[in-house]
Amino acid sequence: MRGAVRAGAALRAMAARGPAATAGIIVIGDEILKGHTRDTNSFFMCQRLRALGVRVARVSVVPDDVDTIAGEVAAFASRFTYVLTSGGIGPTHDDVTFEAVARAFGEVLAPHPELVALVHRFFGKTDASCPEMKLARIPTSSRLNYGTDRRTGSAFKYPLVSVRNVYIFPGIPALMERALDGLSHLFRNEQTCFHSRTIYVAADEMLIAPVLDQANTSFQGRVSLGSYPDWASNYYRVKLTLDSESEEHLEDAYRFLMEKLPPDVVVPFLTDPVSQAATEVYALAESGSALGQKVAAALRTVEGALDRYSLDQLCVGFNGGKDCTALLHLVHAAVQRRYPERQEKLKVLYIRIVSPFPEMEQFIQATVQRTWLAAASKSGAVCSRAASPAARLAAARSMCAGTRSSSAPWRAPSGRPWST
Amino acid sequence: MRGAVRAGAALRAMAARGPAATAGIIVIGDEILKGHTRDTNSFFMCQRLRALGVRVARVSVVPDDVDTIAGEVAAFASRFTYVLTSGGIGPTHDDVTFEAVARAFGEVLAPHPELVALVHRFFGKTDASCPEMKLARIPTSSRLNYGTDRRTGSAFKYPLVSVRNVYIFPGIPALMERALDGLSHLFRNEQTCFHSRTIYVAADEMLIAPVLDQANTSFQGRVSLGSYPDWASNYYRVKLTLDSESEEHLEDAYRFLMEKLPPDVVVPFLTDPVSQAATEVYALAESGSALGQKVAAALRTVEGALDRYSLDQLCVGFNGGKDCTALLHLVHAAVQRRYPERQEKLKVLYIRIVSPFPEMEQFIQATVQRTWLAAASKSGAVCSRAASPAARLAAARSMCAGTRSSSAPWRAPSGRPWST
Repeated sequence: MRGAVRAGAALRAMAARGPAATAGIIVIGDEILKGHTRDTNSFFMCQRLRALGVRVARVSVVPDDVDTIAGEVAAFASRFTYVLTSGGIGPTHDDVTFEAVARAFGEVLAPHPELVALVHRFFGKTDASCPEMKLARIPTSSRLNYGTDRRTGSAFKYPLVSVRNVYIFPGIPALMERALDGLSHLFRNEQTCFHSRTIYVAADEMLIAPVLDQANTSFQGRVSLGSYPDWASNYYRVKLTLDSESEEHLEDAYRFLMEKLPPDVVVPFLTDPVSQAATEVYALAESGSALGQKVAAALRTVEGALDRYSLDQLCVGFNGGKDCTALLHLVHAAVQRRYPERQEKLKVLYIRIVSPFPEMEQFIQATVQRTWLAAASKSGAVCSRAASPAARLAAARSMCAGTRSSSAPWRAPSGRPWST
Repeated sequence: MRGAVRAGAALRAMAARGPAATAGIIVIGDEILKGHTRDTNSFFMCQRLRALGVRVARVSVVPDDVDTIAGEVAAFASRFTYVLTSGGIGPTHDDVTFEAVARAFGEVLAPHPELVALVHRFFGKTDASCPEMKLARIPTSSRLNYGTDRRTGSAFKYPLVSVRNVYIFPGIPALMERALDGLSHLFRNEQTCFHSRTIYVAADEMLIAPVLDQANTSFQGRVSLGSYPDWASNYYRVKLTLDSESEEHLEDAYRFLMEKLPPDVVVPFLTDPVSQAATEVYALAESGSALGQKVAAALRTVEGALDRYSLDQLCVGFNGGKDCTALLHLVHAAVQRRYPERQEKLKVLYIRIVSPFPEMEQFIQATVQRTWLAAASKSGAVCSRAASPAARLAAARSMCAGTRSSSAPWRAPSGRPWST
C-alpha cells in the first residue's frame, strides 16, 4: 500500500512536469562519413544535455550537402525541443550549415549588422564579398546568443547563432565544448533530473534475462533498464543500468532487481573507490570475514602510525605494485576517516627502479592524481621527480611500505625493519 | 585540349561504372544517447566501407525502441544500397533489433532451424522460451551469412543475419569488427575506388577560401574538396582533403590547387616520415640549402660508420630528446637507402635517466615501434629493459650519439670522444 501511494505521488509529480525536453543532434561533415575524422562532438553533447535534464532522442551524421542538411534540420526541428548542429560554419565552400538552416525554414541569408561589426573588429574587413563576411551572413530570423566563459565569468566576444529551436555550433571540438558549456542555461531543464543506478553482475546475460524481463514489464514507462555485456572486464560480465526521472521509481526498481537476481551474482564493483574508501574499507574490516580480519589488523598498524605522527610526518612507499597499492588504499581510507576535512595531501615516496614499464609510470601518475597525494605539489612533478626528494621528505618521520607476509621484510638502509 | 580529352574519358568511365554504392549506418542504443557509452562502431564501419568502395551517406543513432528503429530501417533500406545496424541483438528485453527489422518490412519473427541448432550446440538449450532461443528468432526472410576469420581462413561458427539489404551486426565492438572484416566480400564494390590526396596549409582558412571556391566550382561533382582548420597542430593551420572516384580528376584538382594557392603556404607535412625517410632526407641533403648542407655533413659521418661497420656492429644512442631523435632519423634514412631490403633491425641504446617523464617513455616506445629498431626483439622488451643490455650490445663496435654543435661533446667513458 505504501509503495502504491508513493508511486502515485511520483506519477502525479511527473505528469505535472510533463515529459522531458528532447534534443536531436545533427553532426555535419563529409570527413566523418568518409572515416577521415572521428566524431567526438555528439558524445560530449549527449553527456552535457543529459546532465541538463534534456533527453537526446537522435543523433544524425549528414554530409556537407545543403538539401540533405535542410531536410534533417526541418524534420528534427518539428520533432524535438532542441536541435543542436555541429560543423559547417566556417568561411569555405564546404561550410553550408547557415544556408541549409535558412532553406529548412524557407528563409534566406542576410548580413547581420552585429556580426558585420564583429567581423570588422576581429578581421579588420568590411568588404561584403570577403571570405570573413560569410560568417556574418545568417538566416533572417537568427538570434545571437552570447555565452559566458565559465572560468572567467565574462561574456564570450563571439555569439552562437540560433534559428527557432536550432542551435548552430562550430565543429572544432574545443570551440563547440566551450560554447555549449557557456550556453548551458539555454538548455537547462530544471523540471527534469535524470537519476541513474548501476548494477554489476558476474554472470552471463542469459542467466539473468528472465529477471530483467520481469523488471522491465513491472517498471516499463517509469524506469528504463539497460543490459550491457562487457567482455573485457575482470570484475563483471554484465552492466545493468537503471534510469528514471523519478528517484522513487528508480529505488523501487533497484530493490526489485536486488531481490530477484540470483544470489551472489551482483558484485560490488566501484567505479570510484577513492572517494568512498573510508566507508568501504572499514565496512570490510568490521565484516568479520577472513579478509576483513586481515584488513582490520593492517588498519591497526596504520592507525598506530597516525596516532604517533602528523600527516606531515608520514610518508607512504609506493611503486605501483599490487602490495603497495593495497597499502596505499588502506592508508588513504584511514586518513580519510580521521581527517575528512583535511586540505593537506598525503606524501608518497616512489623509488623508481632502473627500467620501469611505461604503463606502470602511467598508473602511478593516475593514482597520485586520484588519491589526493602530496605529489601534486606546486612543482607539478610527481614523487621523486623534482630536484630533491630528500628535501620534500625531510619532515617525514614514519614510512609505510606494503609487502606480503610471504615476502622478506623490508628494511631501512640502517638495517632496522621499517615501521609497517 | 589534352586535359579536356582526358576528362571526357574519365567521365565516360565513371558513367559506365554508375554511381558508387551507398550505405547507411544505424547505431542502436539508449546508452549512447544517454552519454553513458561512446559509440566507436560507426567510425570503424565508415573507414572499412570506404576502403571497400562504398560511400557512407548517413549515420543515425536511435534509441532501443521498436517503432523508431523500424522507421529508420525502412527509410534507409529504400535509400541506400546497404544498411548496417549495430546493437540490440542479445537475449535481453532491450534487444529489439530483429523485431524492429521484421516490422520495417511487414514480417514476423520465427525460429530459424539453423540458428535453433546452433543455440542447442552452443548453449545446450532446446526450450523455445529460454533466453538463448531469442537469438534464433529472426525475420522470416532472413539470410545467414557465415564470415571468414581473416587470421585463420576458416568460417565463423555463428552467422550474421541479414534481411534484404539490411545487415544486422552486434553492438560489442570486438564482435562487430570481426564480423565486418570477415564479411567484407558482401560489401566490396570492385567498380569503385576512392582516391584521396591531402594538402597541408600553414595559413588561415580566410586567406585560401577564394582559391578553394574556385577549385570547388571547377571540379564540382568530380572531386570533393574539404577544408579543415586544425587549431592544435604545430605544423599547419588547415588540412585540405581531395577525394575522387577518378585518379585523373583528383590529380587535376591537386595540380590546380598547388598552382593557385598563395606561394609558400603549402607545407610538406608528412604523416608517415619513417617509410619515406631515405627519399626525403637525401632530397634535403642535396637541396643545397643551409639546413641541407648540415644534413649532408651529418649523413657523411653516418655513412662513414656504415662503411666501416655492419648493421650488427652499429648502435644508435637514443634518449627521446630532440637532438638524438634527429640523429636517429638520419641514421634510419641512411640505412634505409643502403639496405632497402634489410630484415634485421637497427640497434638503439637508451640510457634511462633517474626520473624520465612518462610522455618521454611513451615517445620512445612509439619511435621504436615505428622505425624498425632492434628493440622489438624476441623478449618484447624495449632497449635496455631486458636483463642484460650489455649482452645485447656486445656485438656493437660503433656508437652514434646526437648532440648539438653548441653542446659540449659527448665522450666515451674512456675519455675519448664518441664517434659522431
